Amino acid sequence: MCEAHISLNAPEFSLEFREEFAALLRWRRDVRHFKTDAVDPSLLDDLLRQAMLAPSVGFCQPWRWVKVNDAGRRAAIVENFTAANLAAGARYEGEKAEQYWRLKLAGLVEAPVHLAVFADLDPAEGGGLGRQTMPETSRWSVVMAIHGLWLAAQAVGLGLGWVSILDASAVQTTLDVPGDWTLIAYLCMGWPAEPSDLPLLEREGWQERVAGAGLILER
Amino acid sequence: MCEAHISLNAPEFSLEFREEFAALLRWRRDVRHFKTDAVDPSLLDDLLRQAMLAPSVGFCQPWRWVKVNDAGRRAAIVENFTAANLAAGARYEGEKAEQYWRLKLAGLVEAPVHLAVFADLDPAEGGGLGRQTMPETSRWSVVMAIHGLWLAAQAVGLGLGWVSILDASAVQTTLDVPGDWTLIAYLCMGWPAEPSDLPLLEREGWQERVAGAGLILER
Repeated sequence: MCEAHISLNAPEFSLEFREEFAALLRWRRDVRHFKTDAVDPSLLDDLLRQAMLAPSVGFCQPWRWVKVNDAGRRAAIVENFTAANLAAGARYEGEKAEQYWRLKLAGLVEAPVHLAVFADLDPAEGGGLGRQTMPETSRWSVVMAIHGLWLAAQAVGLGLGWVSILDASAVQTTLDVPGDWTLIAYLCMGWPAEPSDLPLLEREGWQERVAGAGLILER
Repeated sequence: MCEAHISLNAPEFSLEFREEFAALLRWRRDVRHFKTDAVDPSLLDDLLRQAMLAPSVGFCQPWRWVKVNDAGRRAAIVENFTAANLAAGARYEGEKAEQYWRLKLAGLVEAPVHLAVFADLDPAEGGGLGRQTMPETSRWSVVMAIHGLWLAAQAVGLGLGWVSILDASAVQTTLDVPGDWTLIAYLCMGWPAEPSDLPLLEREGWQERVAGAGLILER
């Protein structure tokens, strides 16, 4: 017990803050068009600290972050994406295929920051609490930390793009990380070439936004 | 293409906003102690709209929300949790077991709002884009929407608790949802009995916060 550390002065968030927070959610994009300007390493560390305030099952804090700086490793990731994307695109036909090949699905070459994010699948921390019935919750804790990073980055004008078109086990080998880590995301980060409040896939006519009310049931 | 809808006036977020956002992350808790006061249904709908601004793979928007209002169904969920928690707690021994049984791990009985969140595993939306190599990303999109809901709720002073100690397939039956949905989270929501900037598991001595710098590698 460490009652002495507990602060009970919970902040109240103003209407103005809440409206700005809603704008932050609205302007957060999956960015694939980056300027090449550098990102201050201390800014990145500050954003990671904020990300690690995410919830985690049993407070097991399973997030593991890898800054990928080495040019050879980055080039291997670009090759990995290129091959995976060729295979992924081959499943589309006709107009949808043309549309697919027009889409820019990753900003790996331009983005100044490459960040791979892993989950430790069986961390000592948390003593297994909360994840016996739903073991996926340790991966999901990492996903929430990534979402926190995404929002914190957006708040300083930094864009983030999540590259999921990758052979995940090859990424693991390329980055030489412990075998009991599993890849959650490979992220590009940098200053976006053009901010937008519409998802690229919506702008390009790939997919419209669904009316949210239709996704809510009552039981 | 709908260029006409694109707003290029990206908001700049002030230092003051960013500091408040960091406070929002710091004060967001997994809440298990709720007051029984009601939550305005229109407030909940507003929070869900914000949550659905989350990123989703291929913009497939796979989140499906179920407001659980029926007393019988709620009682079945409480029973489900009670049984799952008995089984989960049985794996601890000695002091850790005593500590486990002292923890309150869900606020299902008091919380005015029960919200089950599912992923549609193969939504038509998005045309499969981005999830051939990493199919888990559709589940993960829902997890990010839950994290957005959590933060938006915290911004109005509402607490959220994620109950993962459940038999997920029984939840599916209890709530009578489509078979191709999968349970991501069962959430309790309401006004917290006592706000805190420390996780309950840290306050109760179950698990300390890990120094974040040790979780970052360079490659």
